[in-house]
Amino acid sequence: MSNNDWGYIANRAKELVREAAKLIKDSLKDERTIEYKSNPNDLVTEMDRKIEAFFNEEINKEFQEHLILGEEGTGQDLETLNGIVWIIDPIDGTTNFVHQQRHFAISVGIYEEAVGKIGIIYDVMADELFTAVKGEGAFLNNTKLPKLNEANLKEALIAINSGWIVEDTRMLSLVKECRGTRSYGSAAIEIASVAANRTDAYISLNLSPWDFAAGAIIIEELGGRITTVEGEQINLLKAGTICVAKPGLYEQLQELIFKKG
Amino acid sequence: MSNNDWGYIANRAKELVREAAKLIKDSLKDERTIEYKSNPNDLVTEMDRKIEAFFNEEINKEFQEHLILGEEGTGQDLETLNGIVWIIDPIDGTTNFVHQQRHFAISVGIYEEAVGKIGIIYDVMADELFTAVKGEGAFLNNTKLPKLNEANLKEALIAINSGWIVEDTRMLSLVKECRGTRSYGSAAIEIASVAANRTDAYISLNLSPWDFAAGAIIIEELGGRITTVEGEQINLLKAGTICVAKPGLYEQLQELIFKKG
Repeated sequence: MSNNDWGYIANRAKELVREAAKLIKDSLKDERTIEYKSNPNDLVTEMDRKIEAFFNEEINKEFQEHLILGEEGTGQDLETLNGIVWIIDPIDGTTNFVHQQRHFAISVGIYEEAVGKIGIIYDVMADELFTAVKGEGAFLNNTKLPKLNEANLKEALIAINSGWIVEDTRMLSLVKECRGTRSYGSAAIEIASVAANRTDAYISLNLSPWDFAAGAIIIEELGGRITTVEGEQINLLKAGTICVAKPGLYEQLQELIFKKG
Repeated sequence: MSNNDWGYIANRAKELVREAAKLIKDSLKDERTIEYKSNPNDLVTEMDRKIEAFFNEEINKEFQEHLILGEEGTGQDLETLNGIVWIIDPIDGTTNFVHQQRHFAISVGIYEEAVGKIGIIYDVMADELFTAVKGEGAFLNNTKLPKLNEANLKEALIAINSGWIVEDTRMLSLVKECRGTRSYGSAAIEIASVAANRTDAYISLNLSPWDFAAGAIIIEELGGRITTVEGEQINLLKAGTICVAKPGLYEQLQELIFKKG
């Protein structure tokens, strides 16, 4: 197999994500896991580490030349995106995971020379697998997702956490001018919701690369926009702000945020 | 059948809710419905009216002495809750209904002399039926829900729409001091989420009786609290603020909101 047979890599990545999801679901059924909830942080840390270790082992076995950047510390010394890099969030939406045992996702983005090639977001408990291979469209389970239509601020549903509205007054006018806001508690699911045409935009003022690496590939494949809130290219090696939006709405958000900034 | 055979009424109410849900789901499959989306407000108004008319016809046929208060205008001249009154929201979360075709609910609360007897919230697309009969516990589908534990602000997930944070500065400190906020876009589903222990509280500054009539019965059956944000008894005949919370957290929210008010 060639190192860049993207169809093969995408299928293997999807299989690994489903296997990781099974590990998580089995653990949630285990009474010993439930007992951990007396200290919820221990529960999520242990599960995050276990899933990231699973990915590391499987990727290292099959794709020896691929690199890994993960939430739980893998590849934290990476300074470039040279070569092929898997950017992995083993459990995105950890507060939901602990509180709700739902509304969390596994997020895997695979980049080659800093170009997004494969994006996978799996909402584990809803059994919704969002996938994209660059140039070949994006899918929700087995259904091809349509390209994103233009959206307009006045009719837009925007996902944004209330915390950012309190911290950054540029967000106030946005909340007042859109049709409504939502907050689901998982960046990966919130980006996937734009991809699936359930919301029109998603804004966060502090995300790490593993939170949006997969979502960026899916959104761009559908003709949506993803940049920093300041309109700059996303940086996959450090945390920053994120603005995801349908075409048209993206430009309105940029104007609104800068105008008030 | 006696007019107040609550077990029988509860079963019939659940059957009517499931029939109404089937009408909604069938309509969403109908291409003519989808065409309406060029004017989303028409779509939701027609569907709301159709479902409310269905409830009116069925209730009037079987329970001639029962009264009805509905979002689409039924019983809008009601001045008291004397007798048995069904308080119905045919589609709670209308923006979600139009934008997402999910995350909306049918809400039915049945009161006798202003005392809540039966509460039903059905998240149609998730197929989650929340029910309570006063004194007999609350259920999610066939599973009895446990009583709500005490919760603490610092670890609490609170559902609140960003719009309220912009409008009312009392909400700012709340957002800063809790663990996180969520916003799902349906009051009934947000109250049901507290009942199901997925979130710890829900606050809204403007809800109509049909938005919370069912939820109030379910929450109180589980030992949770529901009042206005100002701590007063809820009024089932007019719109107002709502504060739903687990015990312990409710008292903290009351203190926080009044302290900053």
